[in-house]
Parts: sequence; C-alpha cells; structure tokens
Amino acid sequence: MLKIYEFQGFPNPERVRLALAEKRALDLVTFVSVNVPAGEHRDAAFLAKNPSGAVPALELDDGTVIAECTAITEYLDHALPGPRLTGETAKERAIIHMMQRRAEQRLLDAATSYFHHATAGLGPAIERYQNAAWGEHQKAVALDGLRYFNGVLAETPFVAGGALSMADITVFAALRFISVLGLPVSDDYRHLHAWNKAVAARPGFSS
Amino acid sequence: MLKIYEFQGFPNPERVRLALAEKRALDLVTFVSVNVPAGEHRDAAFLAKNPSGAVPALELDDGTVIAECTAITEYLDHALPGPRLTGETAKERAIIHMMQRRAEQRLLDAATSYFHHATAGLGPAIERYQNAAWGEHQKAVALDGLRYFNGVLAETPFVAGGALSMADITVFAALRFISVLGLPVSDDYRHLHAWNKAVAARPGFSS
Repeated sequence: MLKIYEFQGFPNPERVRLALAEKRALDLVTFVSVNVPAGEHRDAAFLAKNPSGAVPALELDDGTVIAECTAITEYLDHALPGPRLTGETAKERAIIHMMQRRAEQRLLDAATSYFHHATAGLGPAIERYQNAAWGEHQKAVALDGLRYFNGVLAETPFVAGGALSMADITVFAALRFISVLGLPVSDDYRHLHAWNKAVAARPGFSS
Repeated sequence: MLKIYEFQGFPNPERVRLALAEKRALDLVTFVSVNVPAGEHRDAAFLAKNPSGAVPALELDDGTVIAECTAITEYLDHALPGPRLTGETAKERAIIHMMQRRAEQRLLDAATSYFHHATAGLGPAIERYQNAAWGEHQKAVALDGLRYFNGVLAETPFVAGGALSMADITVFAALRFISVLGLPVSDDYRHLHAWNKAVAARPGFSS
C-alpha cells in the first residue's frame, strides 16, 4: 500500500491530500505523521527516506521514496484512475506545469518564505537561518501573486484552463495558508474568490 | 514553426537548447533573442507573451506561450520524437520530476540567487532588489547541492536513474553556470566530474 509521510495542517502535505481527494483515492494510501514542529523531519530515519528533510514524501511498495509535490502528483496521476491532474496532451501538460511553477514561485513558496523568515516560523530550534528582509520581500511577491492569479481566473475557469489541475490545488492550498498567516486578500480579487468558493465545494476540499 | 525566446549564455535558455539537442530537434525551432541585459524582457511586448518577464519562453503555432523550463521540456518531450527526457512510467516520471526540482532548488536556482543578490548580477538597472545575505546563504545551498549530487551520481549513472533526463540537463547547466560564477567545485566530487565529462561529450552539449 502506498505510504505518505506528512504533517497535517501544513500546506504541502495538504496538496497531496487534495490530489488524492480529487482522484477519489484517499483510502488507497496510509498516512504516516512526521512531527515537523518537534524536528522529526531531521531525524536520521526520515532523512534516509527524504534527504531534503521535508514532508510530504510518498513511499512506494518497493521502498522507492518520492518527494516534492509535483513529483508525487505525477506519480499518483499516472498510477491511479480518476480525473487527470497533470494533463493529457503536450500542450495541456505544458500549461499545467507552467502554472504549477508560477503557483509555487509567486504564491505558495513565497508565502512559505515569509512564514519561515519574517515570522517566528516553526521556532528557533527549527528555523536555523532567518532573513527577515527576504521574508518581507517574499510577502510582497505573494501579495502580487494574488493579483496575478485573479487576472488569470478572469480569463479561464481554472488556473490552467478548462479543468481542475494540480495548479489549482497549489493555488488553493496557498490561499488557505495565506489566510492562516493573516495576510490580506483584497475583496477586489473577485475572480479569485469565486474560484476559491467553487473549488472549496468539491468533495474533500472543505477544511 | 515553434519559436523560442531566449538569451544565449544564460543557464535557463541553455536547458532548452540542450533538451532540443538531445531530441535532435534544434532545426525544428526558430530562436528569437531577447536582450535581457538591456531590459528587453521587461518591455510590454515581451511581458504580453510571458508575464513573468523571463526567458526562455516557447511560442506555439497557435500563439500559446509556454514559460518555465520544466513546462517547455514537457511540451517538447511529448510533441517531438526522440529519446524521452521526462520518463515513461509513473515511477520514472515521479523520480525525474523529484530530481528536477532538487536540481533547481539545491543547485541552479540557488546559484542564480547568489548571482542576482550577492554579486553585481545584471547591474543596477535590472537588479531592483538585492539581499546580499540571502545571496550568500544561497551560495552555501548551491555548494551543498554539489555534494548532494555527487552522492546521487555515486549510486546511479544519471541524476534520475539509468538514462539521461531533464534533471541531468538542469544539473549540467547549473554546473556550467557555477563555473562561470567562479564558485569552487571540489575535485573530491569525482562522480559528479565523471558524469559531467560524459554528458559534455553528447552531441550539442559541448560549449
């Protein structure tokens, strides 16, 4: 059985749960909690599985460990039945991967950098290097990312076109995290809010 | 005909050229130079094509523009004949995407951040925000990435397993850029050096 190492409440593990929900496959995996706030992701046992020391990580039946959300989603999308999250044609695949990268760089990774660098983050035992100015800069990147994705969603029903893809999942998880962080999401971003409401209504997406 | 916006000598455009070389498809595309050091990537005409204002970008015959190296490589790999750079099976795809992300985060993007933040970068007109401490931190990340990939290449002939993939291309372009930046690559990393020499001997890979 597929095994997923995660810590619930964190945005990247949530992306994998949302992908599984969309594939109707949550019952096909076993979840293993890694206590990140206690530093368990830096224990030798976990580093042997994922040398990057991060959750989520997917362990296959043969012991292979896949880290990084895009990689995990590629595996689940090609190994399991259900709606496609990474596209079918060359053009669909390309647009989805482009928007996935933008959703990370301009929204989720930016918000995560703000959290780790310009707030207390996970506390002094975990945050070994902090750079507050970098964190504030990344906060500005994330807030500009909201503006960008509102513009995208003014043009297309989903982030990468006509159907929900892994890029929507990334933006959705980023929006939830941005809300947890207390960063402002302007009411003017009505396309973003309407899309967020519609996505939250999908099975497995409400918190 | 496919059109690729680029600036030669920069590592990310080079990744697309190397992917095309491996697919034996360099003559299937038209290259358009965007003068990044002069700021042309921030002109309205180019931002209309790629709102992220970065090269490379791929323009399809229908006018669709694909940005981000992974997305461009996904398109080329699925639209063109030749050896597969993004894998065939779910597991191959997942491992390649995992290593691609690591090659970016731990090597190429880290070296690029060092360049833009802790050196003069592309000069004051282009570098609107610099954070030298962040750049130095990312330099340390890149140097640790060299150690990591040397360890990977001690175990497998290529970065993501038994065949060359887009992750090898990213590490190769990163190593060349790291060398241009004058950062040290220890002679102790003999697996990395041996792999680099073998990859450089492939058609289209020598500089």
